[in-house]
Amino acid sequence: MPHLMLIKNVRPMAGDLTDVCVRGGIIEASAPAPDELANDTTVIDGHGAILLPGLVDAHTHIDKTFWGLPWQRHSAGPLLIDKIENERRLLRELNLSTYEQGLNQVRQAIRMGTTHIRTHVDVETEGKLASIEAIQKLKEDFADSVTIQIVAFPQRGMLTRPGTVELMDAAVAAGADLVGGIDPSSMERDPAGHLDAIFSIAERHGVGIDIHLHEPATLGAFSIELIAERTNVLGLQGRVNISHAFCLGMVDDASLGALTELLLEARISIMTHAPGYVAFPPIRRLHDAGVLICSGSDGIRDSWGPYGNADMLEKAMMLGIRSNFRRDEDLELTVQIITKGGASVMGLDGYGIEAGCEADFMLVPGETMAEAVVSRRARTLVVKGGKIVARDDECLV
Amino acid sequence: MPHLMLIKNVRPMAGDLTDVCVRGGIIEASAPAPDELANDTTVIDGHGAILLPGLVDAHTHIDKTFWGLPWQRHSAGPLLIDKIENERRLLRELNLSTYEQGLNQVRQAIRMGTTHIRTHVDVETEGKLASIEAIQKLKEDFADSVTIQIVAFPQRGMLTRPGTVELMDAAVAAGADLVGGIDPSSMERDPAGHLDAIFSIAERHGVGIDIHLHEPATLGAFSIELIAERTNVLGLQGRVNISHAFCLGMVDDASLGALTELLLEARISIMTHAPGYVAFPPIRRLHDAGVLICSGSDGIRDSWGPYGNADMLEKAMMLGIRSNFRRDEDLELTVQIITKGGASVMGLDGYGIEAGCEADFMLVPGETMAEAVVSRRARTLVVKGGKIVARDDECLV
Repeated sequence: MPHLMLIKNVRPMAGDLTDVCVRGGIIEASAPAPDELANDTTVIDGHGAILLPGLVDAHTHIDKTFWGLPWQRHSAGPLLIDKIENERRLLRELNLSTYEQGLNQVRQAIRMGTTHIRTHVDVETEGKLASIEAIQKLKEDFADSVTIQIVAFPQRGMLTRPGTVELMDAAVAAGADLVGGIDPSSMERDPAGHLDAIFSIAERHGVGIDIHLHEPATLGAFSIELIAERTNVLGLQGRVNISHAFCLGMVDDASLGALTELLLEARISIMTHAPGYVAFPPIRRLHDAGVLICSGSDGIRDSWGPYGNADMLEKAMMLGIRSNFRRDEDLELTVQIITKGGASVMGLDGYGIEAGCEADFMLVPGETMAEAVVSRRARTLVVKGGKIVARDDECLV
Repeated sequence: MPHLMLIKNVRPMAGDLTDVCVRGGIIEASAPAPDELANDTTVIDGHGAILLPGLVDAHTHIDKTFWGLPWQRHSAGPLLIDKIENERRLLRELNLSTYEQGLNQVRQAIRMGTTHIRTHVDVETEGKLASIEAIQKLKEDFADSVTIQIVAFPQRGMLTRPGTVELMDAAVAAGADLVGGIDPSSMERDPAGHLDAIFSIAERHGVGIDIHLHEPATLGAFSIELIAERTNVLGLQGRVNISHAFCLGMVDDASLGALTELLLEARISIMTHAPGYVAFPPIRRLHDAGVLICSGSDGIRDSWGPYGNADMLEKAMMLGIRSNFRRDEDLELTVQIITKGGASVMGLDGYGIEAGCEADFMLVPGETMAEAVVSRRARTLVVKGGKIVARDDECLV
């Protein structure tokens, strides 16, 4: 890592042309002195590109991806159980390395300008903690290239598969950063029981919660009520995220208002990956009400589906397309979601491109923020903690 | 244009590796003779790329795009009238050349592998036939690089703006290939009157019809009934396309069945651009029932919205994402829609990659059809009528 780096001719947040100086991995207000410039500085010309803070992929599953493998035909049936069984079969047959596959996706994400990832990692009675351990090692090995948060995720259910609660607890004890959960009613068949179990683990270990909630309409709304109640009682305000929350795009206006109040009171954030085929949270309305929103790739080219490329700018575009955003100010909100929104949900300190922030940023050619989102040009530079991790569309780690 | 062209090492429709020979603009079954190869042949190595017939963008608005201009901020309000007035204002202020702007988009489309475009072109009392004439000239000037069909399109209404019907008739007399229409009830306020007017022009000139139908649910269904009635009575079966037809994604199952029967009887095709924010036709179900489906870019980076890049492979991906297609066979249907589906709707003769077809095709690196759709790699070669019109991601015309 160069001690001193000068990135010339960049436009922070698509603003005016300036230079950015990085010293010891931190963004600095002042330019290097002339003698420093002569001796000790890496100088890069940004050619007028837009400088954004490193993108935040706040919800993905790097333990499941087929990225980098030969194409795997998708032939699973339409039901959830078809997809879960298909996943188990494929992962068994392919005998993949979770570490290598995770790294394939992480490298693609870095190439696309992502510096922070929150990944859910399966915890289940068959593989036990193997995936958690593999991703934990990946997280440590590449700590200077990307920040990874691990959510222990009971993909196959917890109460319905004896032994999983204990494994979830062990996963957090072993270093997982958050406790995950999934559809307390529709999958787990015991909403209070499921939520009590995961909140109990969170309380015991002092970690946050990130729960998958695909449940529709009033069923999903009921789950949000239960989650908010427990968040308040246990003092976990600001540390709970609900991922997907399709129900927020399905309930009537009065219910949405009431749920918004619950989210605000418990300071629960919402993650949406802008699903293609189902209703999803009204992000402009929730954001304007004060609810923290983040986004993520979700699964990328895995047994669940063929889509995805770990490009959070493309995800911003999808948020815009699905939300019928046409105005520049609305597309700017999508950029806010994939940067500061994700950083706030992940509780990152020192995130941003102001002086004193960690030097985690990327350059993308473009005229305006909106244009950068719709054009999604190749990233010309990605810097993590002052280290160049990608350049000219190529990951260097 | 080289008389003889040999494209080596390509995989037609992602199948087995082969060579493709083009003679005089036509795909040929047999390879060139050795002496021809020595003297008169352009030989290109396809490096194992997938060979697809030229992509068909069966619905766009090349007279409106800002493509190639500095970014135009989008700030129009949410109503249809806001957007129409905003468009008029912007087009007036920018004083654009319809020809140059259309060409900007056409070049981008060619770069992305599109060889056939059906574009709607505004006909209205202010500009009269100016846009039609500009695009007509573009169509003729670039006839050997791209096939363009022109739909005379009453964007601002027809019955509600006296003089427009006569201009629509004049547009077709001047060479427009089809008659367009728009929302007979919700915009024109007189469904029978609007449809009688456009069908009358179509009958008088012996051309087909392509009508924008954004009307929702039962209102849109009523319009489809009226369109089908007129199609049958006037013997226009197989020559009428309904664009958008959001209502087909909104009505109940029984109504969808009845509407499907109407579409089949009148041989009316459906165009969907996979809108992001509104229901749209269930393409797998309609296709399996025998309804012809095509797709198109719709507006690209114009006053209506910021999105779009004229990449029909990306459009195929959007069709898949919005339809919750995950299986390879479903993604293959999206490729069928952006190739043969569009070609059938446009009534193209000699379309395809079999021997005897016009040499209109493109190469895209990829493993399978599904992978090509989700990866959308840069096109390495685009050939139109035996002429190389794009190569290595660059338009050559």
